[in-house]
Amino acid sequence: MPVLPASLQNLITALERLPGIGPKSASRLAFFLLRAPDEISGLLAEALQALKSHTSFCPVCFNITQAGSATCEICADARRDETILCVVEEPLDVLALERTGGFSGRYHVLGGVLSPIEGKGPEDLKIRPLIERVRTGVIREVLLATNPSMEGDATALYLRQQLVPLGVRITRLARGLPVGSDLEYADQNTILRALAGRQEMN
Amino acid sequence: MPVLPASLQNLITALERLPGIGPKSASRLAFFLLRAPDEISGLLAEALQALKSHTSFCPVCFNITQAGSATCEICADARRDETILCVVEEPLDVLALERTGGFSGRYHVLGGVLSPIEGKGPEDLKIRPLIERVRTGVIREVLLATNPSMEGDATALYLRQQLVPLGVRITRLARGLPVGSDLEYADQNTILRALAGRQEMN
Repeated sequence: MPVLPASLQNLITALERLPGIGPKSASRLAFFLLRAPDEISGLLAEALQALKSHTSFCPVCFNITQAGSATCEICADARRDETILCVVEEPLDVLALERTGGFSGRYHVLGGVLSPIEGKGPEDLKIRPLIERVRTGVIREVLLATNPSMEGDATALYLRQQLVPLGVRITRLARGLPVGSDLEYADQNTILRALAGRQEMN
Repeated sequence: MPVLPASLQNLITALERLPGIGPKSASRLAFFLLRAPDEISGLLAEALQALKSHTSFCPVCFNITQAGSATCEICADARRDETILCVVEEPLDVLALERTGGFSGRYHVLGGVLSPIEGKGPEDLKIRPLIERVRTGVIREVLLATNPSMEGDATALYLRQQLVPLGVRITRLARGLPVGSDLEYADQNTILRALAGRQEMN
């Protein structure tokens, strides 16, 4: 079987290593880049090279931030409520919450969840720095916003145990029917949670 | 709303311009690249930069090939049957056919299909070079392997008109039920084609 030109094959191989991109998507993307204006592949190549050298992690909340800045923009913003701390798994979760505009406190990014299967224990997450932050006494409420998954729940439970002795209010994001969804198609667990968490209509 | 570090935002923007990658996939990929070993993003950046400078189009069949080589590997391979020519839309189609190992003739890549909506006429495809190749008299059969779509069919019909006066055998890939599929879930047109094209069991 005749092979593709090496440079094209290299690109396909490199694209295949990305999550969610299989061999077919990888070749489709590579052929697209081949025919697209040079600018598209050029910008992508530049962005990839600049990525690691220009980003770092905030030493306070462990969110990603511009390299060279002392803390991230959220930690540096004095207008944000420092008495409420939202604990999330990943930087993408901060982005999702910030997009809503519904939270004005501070964040703490764990960098994952507890997962015995993947060998991830408490020392692999930013749990010790979280306890230290809460110990300073400024924080009144810790909102555990790990994902509503098995591992997210287990991590929240573990964090609750660690935080209870510190005397802060510990909350978790509400469970229920997602907005715009259909009761008919909701799964049993979601409906059970929506029943248990039902609220007064005012 | 606090923005992401510029270098990360640039990468997300660059990824979003790829086909089939929306804002969510783009940020997921960008965060993956941020945490992945440098090697993964480095290889991808290199492959992107080498892509255009190291590839060109075969002047005979218009498939992509290594820059600097006179023709592509298939055109240069003397063992391949030069009396049968398979006409496809894109280089990816050559790859799909070659993977099967079921075709040993030569190819001709049109570079698209006739599409009045997108303003693509016969002069935008490699149709004139195709006619020239067939006119040399070596080719006995032209297999029109454009996609079994409306535009693919229209292009095949147009090519047939052009090729009939040259006295070559003109064929088209068979239509019918895909292997491993389920009659129950096949669409009407496919079943009609499968009925019309039914074959003797020997």
